[in-house]
Amino acid sequence: MDKAKPLPSLLVQRYHGWRATSYMENKAWYRRLADEGQRPKTMIISCCDSRVHVTGIFGADQGEFFIHRNIANLVPPYLPDGQQHGTSAALEYAVTALKVAHVVVMGHSACGGVQGCLDMCSGRAPELEEKSSFVGRWMDLLRPGYERVKDLDGYDAQRAALEREAVLVSLENLMTFPFVASQVDAENLSLHGLWHDIGNGTVEQFLPAQNAFRPI
Amino acid sequence: MDKAKPLPSLLVQRYHGWRATSYMENKAWYRRLADEGQRPKTMIISCCDSRVHVTGIFGADQGEFFIHRNIANLVPPYLPDGQQHGTSAALEYAVTALKVAHVVVMGHSACGGVQGCLDMCSGRAPELEEKSSFVGRWMDLLRPGYERVKDLDGYDAQRAALEREAVLVSLENLMTFPFVASQVDAENLSLHGLWHDIGNGTVEQFLPAQNAFRPI
Amino acid sequence: MDKAKPLPSLLVQRYHGWRATSYMENKAWYRRLADEGQRPKTMIISCCDSRVHVTGIFGADQGEFFIHRNIANLVPPYLPDGQQHGTSAALEYAVTALKVAHVVVMGHSACGGVQGCLDMCSGRAPELEEKSSFVGRWMDLLRPGYERVKDLDGYDAQRAALEREAVLVSLENLMTFPFVASQVDAENLSLHGLWHDIGNGTVEQFLPAQNAFRPI
Amino acid sequence: MDKAKPLPSLLVQRYHGWRATSYMENKAWYRRLADEGQRPKTMIISCCDSRVHVTGIFGADQGEFFIHRNIANLVPPYLPDGQQHGTSAALEYAVTALKVAHVVVMGHSACGGVQGCLDMCSGRAPELEEKSSFVGRWMDLLRPGYERVKDLDGYDAQRAALEREAVLVSLENLMTFPFVASQVDAENLSLHGLWHDIGNGTVEQFLPAQNAFRPI
Repeated sequence: MDKAKPLPSLLVQRYHGWRATSYMENKAWYRRLADEGQRPKTMIISCCDSRVHVTGIFGADQGEFFIHRNIANLVPPYLPDGQQHGTSAALEYAVTALKVAHVVVMGHSACGGVQGCLDMCSGRAPELEEKSSFVGRWMDLLRPGYERVKDLDGYDAQRAALEREAVLVSLENLMTFPFVASQVDAENLSLHGLWHDIGNGTVEQFLPAQNAFRPI
Repeated sequence: MDKAKPLPSLLVQRYHGWRATSYMENKAWYRRLADEGQRPKTMIISCCDSRVHVTGIFGADQGEFFIHRNIANLVPPYLPDGQQHGTSAALEYAVTALKVAHVVVMGHSACGGVQGCLDMCSGRAPELEEKSSFVGRWMDLLRPGYERVKDLDGYDAQRAALEREAVLVSLENLMTFPFVASQVDAENLSLHGLWHDIGNGTVEQFLPAQNAFRPI
Repeated sequence: MDKAKPLPSLLVQRYHGWRATSYMENKAWYRRLADEGQRPKTMIISCCDSRVHVTGIFGADQGEFFIHRNIANLVPPYLPDGQQHGTSAALEYAVTALKVAHVVVMGHSACGGVQGCLDMCSGRAPELEEKSSFVGRWMDLLRPGYERVKDLDGYDAQRAALEREAVLVSLENLMTFPFVASQVDAENLSLHGLWHDIGNGTVEQFLPAQNAFRPI
Repeated sequence: MDKAKPLPSLLVQRYHGWRATSYMENKAWYRRLADEGQRPKTMIISCCDSRVHVTGIFGADQGEFFIHRNIANLVPPYLPDGQQHGTSAALEYAVTALKVAHVVVMGHSACGGVQGCLDMCSGRAPELEEKSSFVGRWMDLLRPGYERVKDLDGYDAQRAALEREAVLVSLENLMTFPFVASQVDAENLSLHGLWHDIGNGTVEQFLPAQNAFRPI
């Protein structure tokens, strides 16, 4: 791999700052985590977006959250076809090997992936329909959500609703995995749906009894 | 989605701590990021492992790192077959839409995914060979790395080498994406390979000139 | 301008070191910042003192901090009299054009400007009272601070207090600028006051609730 | 000053990283600089722009560069009128108290202040002509430079030339200060003019013999 470059020196400097402080203060704990393995209580599925770091929002300690981040925090339906499914692999590992007690899906405002889906499904972004568009094909996962918001009045309303649908579709797809459904039914695992507003700093959670997202 | 549960109160409580401090301290910046969109300089591809949070190690500010996390920080080869490829979608969005300047792949010690690959390829974990194993199929991506370490002496040596191969295979696969290769060739994008030791808190980077990982 | 001389070769040499490393490592990002413009989150007002570089202390990435440095990190009161006010111009540009989210004023120990002010106000440096003394007239800005410390016991105590007053007077003057006050009131901008001890490497911040500087 | 807020925690964290590394490694030197005072060899006058940090470009050690940063790196002409002149105060302190051996003025590409001056002088930005515009009044200092570039062909050419004029006008103004001129004539002080291209990472210096800027 002859193309790799040295890490930018600013990141090297910041790493040394981290090691001299956070690491040194918790050295014994890091060593123990290394020796004994992780035992996370919660898996979080959130977006790659650089403005939304769940480690900060939920004050992640080392060893606490198993975090998968992809475009638009989507979970595909269960499809054991022998192909590569990175999200499904992360989920399988978290639930069957690590036996997490919670899976949290967190969406957010101003999500570029969700906007791409809306534009694609409404005919505004035909380039995303192409077979070669990885973002387009990935966002196909959210088409069922689009069907439920397409009659709302106006682009902004559709977009806001579709961001929440990205969470709901993922929760629905989670339950198609046998190893998830069985653990949920056995009350060994609970699922949670959140939506985060970047600008306001608020978080809403989905409450089935109200069939709505409500501030936490 | 009637299975969703309210968020555990500990997380609600921590969220409010974050909002009262980090969010309130930077409210104006969050609003601006929400209004104007993100402009991250760097994409980081790291593992879901709960012991390895790059946001801490590299002191991530909001808007700075676009982060994809999957099992064993793997990048698949370019395959525009119209199927869902979450990692490829994240990469495409980061490089072509966000135009990040750096892609960093960071592996780590005691990686459960890498261990699974080693066990599978060496016959120790036949269940991972099954078609229905999402983790097994995902770790197929690292089989080329296994071929390069299988003759090393001893399980621990093979495992340590395979963790670094997970980074090298990903860097190689990155270059199979036309939009990555062209930006690398145009010097608009640089690739970096890291490996992190959880217990020691050290980070090594791959240096092509030495064909080896060296401490930063 | 026939007096200009070539840059000393040591600086030329160091520049080439920077270009071969830091610049080359981040070339794509520099190009992008050049093309798209800066979007700094924070304005820092600090002293010209050669021992206090906030770029190091706070690990400044390119594009992150808009930095004004003058003698004793002073901000004059709002005075739109059509004359040249370099600090006010920098502030206006940062707040109204760049829309920074934070303004940080950082003072420091052993500040020559502050000592000059103390000596001038206490009659020890009559030459600074002369109309032609640029330093003296600049340090007039800190006279309100001197009034608050002049009854303290001893020169060293007065000096240490006056260094912190340089921060407080500047924070007060910041609020006399309508474009600052309105953004602060709208919670789009927050102000911060720091004092740095060069020898100990410590930093204190002003906490209004305690009406005192406290270590960070 | 009841409006001051605590420093954002990310900056607190970075500060602790700096203290645990850079400061601790050089503790003895910091203490000595604190006790014995600074003895900088060079004063640098550069722009506040967040993309241009001379501490990085010229590898500033603690105690080495006395740095004044203002909008568009401008030096006003000598005007001992008893008013506040922050740049003149910094210059006076550097040359007469610290006795620096070099004064370097460094301009740069894509300078917002220079662009504002060009727009103002060419009638494109009448709001900058208002008495209340601090940026406009500050950029009045560059009007003599505009007169020398206004007949160039095209906006971009004028702008590029005006960025270099900001350096030349400042060098000319430097020589109007008696304490500068006398030290330059006595060969105790030398002046240098630089212009930095952010995107290319290049630096040019003004060479009187060629009456032009040339790469270093």
